[in-house]
Amino acid sequence: MLTAHTIKVLQSLDKKKFRQKYNLFLVEGNKIICELFNSNFKVKEILSTDPQKLDRTDVPITHISENELKKISFLKTPKDSVAVCYLDQQETWADKKVQLVLDGIQDPGNLGTIIRLADWFGIEQIICSEDTVDFYNPKVIQATMGSFTRVNIVYTDLVEYLSKTENVNIGTDMDGENIYTFEKPEKINLILGNEGNGMRPETEKLLPKCISIPRFGKSQSTESLNVSMAAGIILGQLFSK
Amino acid sequence: MLTAHTIKVLQSLDKKKFRQKYNLFLVEGNKIICELFNSNFKVKEILSTDPQKLDRTDVPITHISENELKKISFLKTPKDSVAVCYLDQQETWADKKVQLVLDGIQDPGNLGTIIRLADWFGIEQIICSEDTVDFYNPKVIQATMGSFTRVNIVYTDLVEYLSKTENVNIGTDMDGENIYTFEKPEKINLILGNEGNGMRPETEKLLPKCISIPRFGKSQSTESLNVSMAAGIILGQLFSK
Repeated sequence: MLTAHTIKVLQSLDKKKFRQKYNLFLVEGNKIICELFNSNFKVKEILSTDPQKLDRTDVPITHISENELKKISFLKTPKDSVAVCYLDQQETWADKKVQLVLDGIQDPGNLGTIIRLADWFGIEQIICSEDTVDFYNPKVIQATMGSFTRVNIVYTDLVEYLSKTENVNIGTDMDGENIYTFEKPEKINLILGNEGNGMRPETEKLLPKCISIPRFGKSQSTESLNVSMAAGIILGQLFSK
Repeated sequence: MLTAHTIKVLQSLDKKKFRQKYNLFLVEGNKIICELFNSNFKVKEILSTDPQKLDRTDVPITHISENELKKISFLKTPKDSVAVCYLDQQETWADKKVQLVLDGIQDPGNLGTIIRLADWFGIEQIICSEDTVDFYNPKVIQATMGSFTRVNIVYTDLVEYLSKTENVNIGTDMDGENIYTFEKPEKINLILGNEGNGMRPETEKLLPKCISIPRFGKSQSTESLNVSMAAGIILGQLFSK
């Protein structure tokens, strides 16, 4: 039986403030939970409607009812289990050869999709501006389909970071160099801007070059592609060379 | 003032059965509604909280209250206007040189995203299996961001269609030819399968070849890419040549 206090704490973890206060975040569903065990993330406990399925002895597992699961789950259709995990207290990190840099991505679904893309393309690290949506947000965690366990995600002051990195900073916008002719530098940061406003002017100032996906459709009314879709198409092209 | 009957009819248009019964579908938001006027779609009437903004005399516009808009809108945060449109009664169509073929796509967001992608890449026609989600579904219409007005969407018996088309039918799966080495035929149908199950066996039988996006990440646990993301990356690559 979960106490009312426990339920209240777990329910509060959809807010960054409370995730930081308790140093905890939630991961839902056995499939993603199992990937935690191959990662640096530490699991505090698992609450499951079917503990036998998980078959782990190294982590406390509490049997809960469907009704309790409904109370603590952030999903419309709750899955089998919820893992309560500790935030990863990252101290030091170093640049990787190919990185994504996110300048104010706000939508949890977009961040989750971008993390999943990074994992697909073997990109090990994503650098985020401090105002990028928190990746411990339950919607982000679920949208990554477990990829957050394999991609290192760092929040930092972008202007400071971009000024000192040795990677070549390449922006993405609507009138940059055609991705089909662009020659990828060996060490690259690909910068993706906010959904509505793109990259910030102070970020753009620090970029030697921007690239764009050419639009083949003739209508001027066609909306620009969603940021995560654009990221996928650009990565697909960068990795072709 | 909208009558209770009108409200009931409009509310029923989230279901295919009622869209077909009344021969109507809804488009929400002035931005997308304006694109209807440059298309073949016929608008029956517009219900708007701010009719002056639309500035049209060729279509009946009814002034409605915010409260009435809330009742008829399918959006969480309703926009300014709702256009009531006639379904496009398509009779004949002919193959285009580059087409997408959808084999049982179920998620409205995926179909909407794929239509938007087609528009970006100038693909004029999408052929759907009869069990593909209806593109008049309000979630599809909104996810296309207006692109449904520029891409012709056809529902047909895929086995029959794929057997007789002169385009080369190219499937997409997890172990096909690498998209980076694949040579695009001049006339191509790119077939995308259902979210969970991929293409149907009876569809696959009719394909001379499948193509795949190579996974650069090393983990075997990485989930395969979402179908609309895969479509974007493949199209990005096909159009590079």
